[in-house]
Amino acid sequence: MDFIALLEKKKRGQELTREEIAFFAEGAARGTVPDYQLSALLMAIRLRGMTDRETRDLTLCMAESGHMLTPDVGGVPVDKHSTGGVGDTTTLILAPLVAAAGGKVLKMSGRGLGHTGGTLDKLESIPGMRVDLSEETFVRICRETGCCVTGQTAELAPADKTLYALRDVTATVDSIPLIASSILSKKFASGARAIVLDVKTGAGALMPTEEESVALAQTMVRIGTLSGRRVVAVVSGMDEPLGSHVGNALEVREAIDVLSGRAREGDPLTAVSLALGALMLQAGGVEKDFERARARLRGLIRDGSGLNKLREMISRQGGDPRVCDDTSLLPAAPVLRQVPCPSDGFLCGVDCTRLGYIAQRMGAGRARKGDSIDPAVGFVIHRRIGDRCRKGEPLFTLHARTPESADRAEGELLSALSFSEASCPKARLIWDIVDENGVYPLTGEGLF
Amino acid sequence: MDFIALLEKKKRGQELTREEIAFFAEGAARGTVPDYQLSALLMAIRLRGMTDRETRDLTLCMAESGHMLTPDVGGVPVDKHSTGGVGDTTTLILAPLVAAAGGKVLKMSGRGLGHTGGTLDKLESIPGMRVDLSEETFVRICRETGCCVTGQTAELAPADKTLYALRDVTATVDSIPLIASSILSKKFASGARAIVLDVKTGAGALMPTEEESVALAQTMVRIGTLSGRRVVAVVSGMDEPLGSHVGNALEVREAIDVLSGRAREGDPLTAVSLALGALMLQAGGVEKDFERARARLRGLIRDGSGLNKLREMISRQGGDPRVCDDTSLLPAAPVLRQVPCPSDGFLCGVDCTRLGYIAQRMGAGRARKGDSIDPAVGFVIHRRIGDRCRKGEPLFTLHARTPESADRAEGELLSALSFSEASCPKARLIWDIVDENGVYPLTGEGLF
Repeated sequence: MDFIALLEKKKRGQELTREEIAFFAEGAARGTVPDYQLSALLMAIRLRGMTDRETRDLTLCMAESGHMLTPDVGGVPVDKHSTGGVGDTTTLILAPLVAAAGGKVLKMSGRGLGHTGGTLDKLESIPGMRVDLSEETFVRICRETGCCVTGQTAELAPADKTLYALRDVTATVDSIPLIASSILSKKFASGARAIVLDVKTGAGALMPTEEESVALAQTMVRIGTLSGRRVVAVVSGMDEPLGSHVGNALEVREAIDVLSGRAREGDPLTAVSLALGALMLQAGGVEKDFERARARLRGLIRDGSGLNKLREMISRQGGDPRVCDDTSLLPAAPVLRQVPCPSDGFLCGVDCTRLGYIAQRMGAGRARKGDSIDPAVGFVIHRRIGDRCRKGEPLFTLHARTPESADRAEGELLSALSFSEASCPKARLIWDIVDENGVYPLTGEGLF
Repeated sequence: MDFIALLEKKKRGQELTREEIAFFAEGAARGTVPDYQLSALLMAIRLRGMTDRETRDLTLCMAESGHMLTPDVGGVPVDKHSTGGVGDTTTLILAPLVAAAGGKVLKMSGRGLGHTGGTLDKLESIPGMRVDLSEETFVRICRETGCCVTGQTAELAPADKTLYALRDVTATVDSIPLIASSILSKKFASGARAIVLDVKTGAGALMPTEEESVALAQTMVRIGTLSGRRVVAVVSGMDEPLGSHVGNALEVREAIDVLSGRAREGDPLTAVSLALGALMLQAGGVEKDFERARARLRGLIRDGSGLNKLREMISRQGGDPRVCDDTSLLPAAPVLRQVPCPSDGFLCGVDCTRLGYIAQRMGAGRARKGDSIDPAVGFVIHRRIGDRCRKGEPLFTLHARTPESADRAEGELLSALSFSEASCPKARLIWDIVDENGVYPLTGEGLF
């Protein structure tokens, strides 16, 4: 097959055949098509688009470019994915909670890069925790405990690895067919049959507007249907961090807080986790009704079953389960500093992307692939958008490696938050739920 | 400067600044921007376009990416360029003919690739002829004799070399701003102040439709004006080879035939040469009126001055000028075969691109850069589109290296020509003349 002919077609806005798309995915996975041709096609796809049929084929071909898991876990393998948030630690809550309700959560996660954290890095802050499991161990733990979270293997959708790296340096990230196929190919390859997505919207998200975010969610739902998988999505705002904790060990602590019922009433991290979890139970065929599913998950937090399941998962993956009862066993930063509100007023805006980069520079994240991270550092924000702040009350707490790092982060954080004297509305949390039947608002808790 | 930000802008259809375009051209020339980013930008330019200002800047930045000649040749340096034809040997006719009329023709040419021939290859079929002159010699010969044709130096618009090679393998050849800047950057860098272009149109040409070909010509005329150079263009059809001879030494022979007045009445190669030559005299400020210029050139053929100038140019470039009087001194192929018309009828269609590839496979052209060529081989077609063919009359003559090569070419040529019993119209030769005042038809000879 001739790659130039394929470029010619897409350049003219024509539809590529399954064979042509397979040639593209194989070429990316095996290195048989040079990068400069792949990147020209990525730009042509970004500007000309792809039909659902093409996007489905690209998803499947990328998934099949490596090893495809067909795991026997004694139920429908369910996975969830977030398009990248700050302070978003739902996976650590949902994997055990959904498993406690009878779901089978089989999840391969990535590491953090740039301003967003990575589930693997968070898990690794738990002493002894292993996230480099073999496929066999991964599937066995899931079958026996109901959940397992490990790292993506080199064999997982290698075509996506090449294309993802190229998109990053060719301004072709913001393409719905390319985002959809990248996300779903990895989920399909790791064996998920039901997938719940959290598509972030707002400045700093992959898709800045609600309209585009809904369009991305709808595309992924349709690709799921066309591929024989169930895909459901939530579109949620990222005007501020989802949880109050930003940093690896800090986010593990917050997940444990939520699972042990210590989160305050209406806590947004809990609300989003319950919504996503209820959708996971529905998509996995465990519970038909959304409200019943959500109530059940709430009950499993109350009776301690969710936390119990987290203990079990940590223990099976080599970690120390005692962190669930004593979070002081997690790595702690030497410099703790509480920073008070500078004046009376209301918190009106948070530059969420900047917050992510502040945590990264403190040591919690990576500027480049392969950088090492500091699991202990980060910060906790004590106010949400719309909250009243009285001068002198705690605004945020820094967990830093050195006083210099704390100084820098303090100044940067203060300038990333904006205040006003007049009150301002809370940030909307969950915008829409998207499934094969349409787009509709979430009712009840979780709206804000 | 960040190349990704530049990609981001062009992807969104925004105009790039002069500084951004300079960064792109320098990055291509020096290899400081990786190919996969260059090719993504080429595709974005292909799909989003460029304004005239951007195209002018790209042209100038590519020209300035290498050494710029500012030659003193005792007049306005005039150049001509064809976008690539088959059997198109106008340069060999025009360089001496325009010089004989007092013009200064300073031309750096390329080698043939694919189905189109290259002027350098044709010149090299003349025994002793040098086409690797130093810039100094090149300019001196032009100053003293009025014309010189040599090869492009490595220092000529190096940004274009990189981008040209990338466009070829990324389906981004057919972009008006990229074609215009590629052609004109080399002309500007080699010192031309007046440029006459022959923009081919039809299947196998860079631009398949007359409309697109005129648009390309108009863009180049405008870029000329915006850059302080005079650019004029002819849009001509390539439904069949321009001359009757295809092959290197064969085309030199045909050029000598034209210059010595042996071409038959209304010969298309002569007609196009006279039109282009008259425009060159106008653009170079030698003669104001088109018809007077054309008449003057006709006179210089008749009185032998054109052929004399060719003798002089060949001699100054180390070649044997006796070829002008005795074309049997040119390389000759061992196998000559005359192929007759297979039946009574009319020649109705010629697959011109295929003809080019047939000559290439006989040895006259290159499949890859650096391949060696056979100067002697090729063919002469004795009929033009619209001509009557009587069974048994000569249709074409093959000049082959081996009988096997002749066999193969014979079959291929017969299937590249189509005949009908009913008469059919001649192919239109010159479609339009485009200059800064507009687009208008050529009148008088050369219409067909």
